[in-house]
Amino acid sequence: MKSDLDALMQARNLDAVLIFGDAENNPPMYYFVGGGHVSGALLIKKVGKEPVLFYNDMERDEAAKSGLQTVSYSEYGPIADYLKEANDDMLMAFALRRKRILSDYGLSGGRIGVYGKVDFSQHFGVTMNLIKLMPEVEFIGEHVNDSILLRAMETKDDVEVARIRQMGAVTTTVVQMVHDYLTSCDVREDEVLLKEDGSPLTIGDVKGKIALWLAERGAVDVEGVIFAIGRDAGVPHSTGDPKDLLRLGRTIVFDIFPAEKGGGYFYDFTRTWSLGYAAPEAQAMYDQVHEIYSQVVENLDLNASFVDYHRMTCEYFESKGHKTPLNTNAPLDGYVHSLGHGVGLNIHERPASGFTAGADNILKPGVVITIEPGLYYPEKGMGFRIEDTYWVRPDGKIEMLAEYPYDFVLPMKTWKRK
Amino acid sequence: MKSDLDALMQARNLDAVLIFGDAENNPPMYYFVGGGHVSGALLIKKVGKEPVLFYNDMERDEAAKSGLQTVSYSEYGPIADYLKEANDDMLMAFALRRKRILSDYGLSGGRIGVYGKVDFSQHFGVTMNLIKLMPEVEFIGEHVNDSILLRAMETKDDVEVARIRQMGAVTTTVVQMVHDYLTSCDVREDEVLLKEDGSPLTIGDVKGKIALWLAERGAVDVEGVIFAIGRDAGVPHSTGDPKDLLRLGRTIVFDIFPAEKGGGYFYDFTRTWSLGYAAPEAQAMYDQVHEIYSQVVENLDLNASFVDYHRMTCEYFESKGHKTPLNTNAPLDGYVHSLGHGVGLNIHERPASGFTAGADNILKPGVVITIEPGLYYPEKGMGFRIEDTYWVRPDGKIEMLAEYPYDFVLPMKTWKRK
Repeated sequence: MKSDLDALMQARNLDAVLIFGDAENNPPMYYFVGGGHVSGALLIKKVGKEPVLFYNDMERDEAAKSGLQTVSYSEYGPIADYLKEANDDMLMAFALRRKRILSDYGLSGGRIGVYGKVDFSQHFGVTMNLIKLMPEVEFIGEHVNDSILLRAMETKDDVEVARIRQMGAVTTTVVQMVHDYLTSCDVREDEVLLKEDGSPLTIGDVKGKIALWLAERGAVDVEGVIFAIGRDAGVPHSTGDPKDLLRLGRTIVFDIFPAEKGGGYFYDFTRTWSLGYAAPEAQAMYDQVHEIYSQVVENLDLNASFVDYHRMTCEYFESKGHKTPLNTNAPLDGYVHSLGHGVGLNIHERPASGFTAGADNILKPGVVITIEPGLYYPEKGMGFRIEDTYWVRPDGKIEMLAEYPYDFVLPMKTWKRK
Repeated sequence: MKSDLDALMQARNLDAVLIFGDAENNPPMYYFVGGGHVSGALLIKKVGKEPVLFYNDMERDEAAKSGLQTVSYSEYGPIADYLKEANDDMLMAFALRRKRILSDYGLSGGRIGVYGKVDFSQHFGVTMNLIKLMPEVEFIGEHVNDSILLRAMETKDDVEVARIRQMGAVTTTVVQMVHDYLTSCDVREDEVLLKEDGSPLTIGDVKGKIALWLAERGAVDVEGVIFAIGRDAGVPHSTGDPKDLLRLGRTIVFDIFPAEKGGGYFYDFTRTWSLGYAAPEAQAMYDQVHEIYSQVVENLDLNASFVDYHRMTCEYFESKGHKTPLNTNAPLDGYVHSLGHGVGLNIHERPASGFTAGADNILKPGVVITIEPGLYYPEKGMGFRIEDTYWVRPDGKIEMLAEYPYDFVLPMKTWKRK
């Protein structure tokens, strides 16, 4: 939580945190500013102090909405003056202004962490100039998934959980709408689903509806939606070919991870469906995925190590004859990814569950995580994944944030197997 | 255009371009990969060579869709091996792998530009390690608006213009829908617009409809929409308070800048409306904005300097008694911004029109720019802006990419002034 930040900074011996960029679609800045049309901003948080937000004059009202202490860049004079001093080198001009700001805030030396989802080229150039201008300052980059910001974000407060839960309600509502739409489609002789106008229904059509139904609810599939059928369902991150037709009896992996508009909190959810009927081999594999999913969920414990559940999943799948990361490096079929991840302002954040994740990736109170075992057989034209998002509550109970049924075969309203 | 890149690299003495990050919502990577679910990728373009895309195995199908030469990171072995060598320092592990890749591609020395909209902290940390590992390489950061990538992007080929034009068609369609919706609303005694259910219409309601109507057309208001009334209309980057009610006779600044879903091409467009009637002072100011807009557009010339039109606009507004950047540093009312900017994969890109823009910001063939004069009087509770997007064609003609009327006062269907 945000309240952990000072302790985290002290533990890493950081005197200040510097965040660059826009307030939207930029998790580190969003975490403090809460979104809004504040662009090219700078946030300084010194250890033990409240953050200060530097903004461009045109955006003063939006900056004020953050509730933070704010300072207009214009108080530091026109950028043209710095450009002159910098012989028209814009990166040096920005560095000169930043040096003045940092010095004013008592940061002429020390260790300063730098963050933000921004244009790397410009900020790298400015920072390299700043290193020359401020030799007493050490600028620190941190691994995205292990930075103090991600460590603060790892545990959520009640307001954050309520927002993730609300996004879960939107997600399952839209999934139900997709379910109702698909199962009410007419089916052609060759088992292709048809639209109202009698033409074949495509993945692109379904994705268009998903985007629309999310937008109606203030959500955006900003990182996309996976809606993949057949072979594509067997490649975990294949998002689905828009031209593919919806057919009965093929596995469909529907992984939906929308966020609040403007770069807010995510939800993450997957179901695997087979319309009308399923091949016996597919049903058997789905049952395995559902079986280990249920075992994992039943066994989730407060303060347990996340990777232990990933190992449990690998062991289960290997006992069924599948390849997994336990004994195969980067398998291309079988169980090919790790069990889950934290969810928040980033679709993937701490804690992690893979074998390279550190021992401190544990289910501590306040984390919000996905559990998502899967099996992938592209050459067989099938793939499977079940995923829900869970909250480890302060009272130690582990709660699913949005319920949804686990049906694999979805009966069609107007079609019966002969 | 992309074909300019080798010459641009040679002019800046760059041996290679390195782009980090995802293929979506990351303009430098999108420019080469064209979107898709390719995350945490690395693109290397050496001068005179075709680019090579490094991807994660799980995303091999999506990477292949780019049509680029692709290489799986897994060919460089598991990251765990590098982690061991790096004593569990993940940033150093990434740097070690990157060093191996760069060396394999003949980049053990030289000047390498670094780009991408990414998590700054991680990539800064990796690059600082790489600087230690590869002292013969100089990594170069460039100003976002002056980088060789932005200079290549500055001129658009026919495919790019067609995509921007298509986004313009979506934009004006949605603007017309908003127009039709607003003017058909019932109006309460106190001049507040009402929804179908008889409750007051809010800015939030209107923005919800805009998001929906864009989503239906494959577009996203990824950077937001400005729909601001009264005092908010007088603050150029105030996006509008969702709780504000729609009222007759107040200026509404409607600035809409959607992009193709997934981080593609933008369009940029603004109209100012006053519903039902307008105050005489507001009408007079609108007329001034429209007058200088028309003068600028009539005078746009192939290869002219963009800033000259900004100066022309300042001079016109000052002759009417308004403050402008010509004689006031960062004015808070009057004409407070610059005339326009390039539009492409970034909502703001080259060429620029402000007084700090270099002399090479000219209307050369292939640029796509906005023209957007405005006046802002927050204390009077009013603001005005007119904006369209123009293409400087290879034949030297200057073409508006989506037409839309310039009516200021929108007559209401069910309301007449007494």
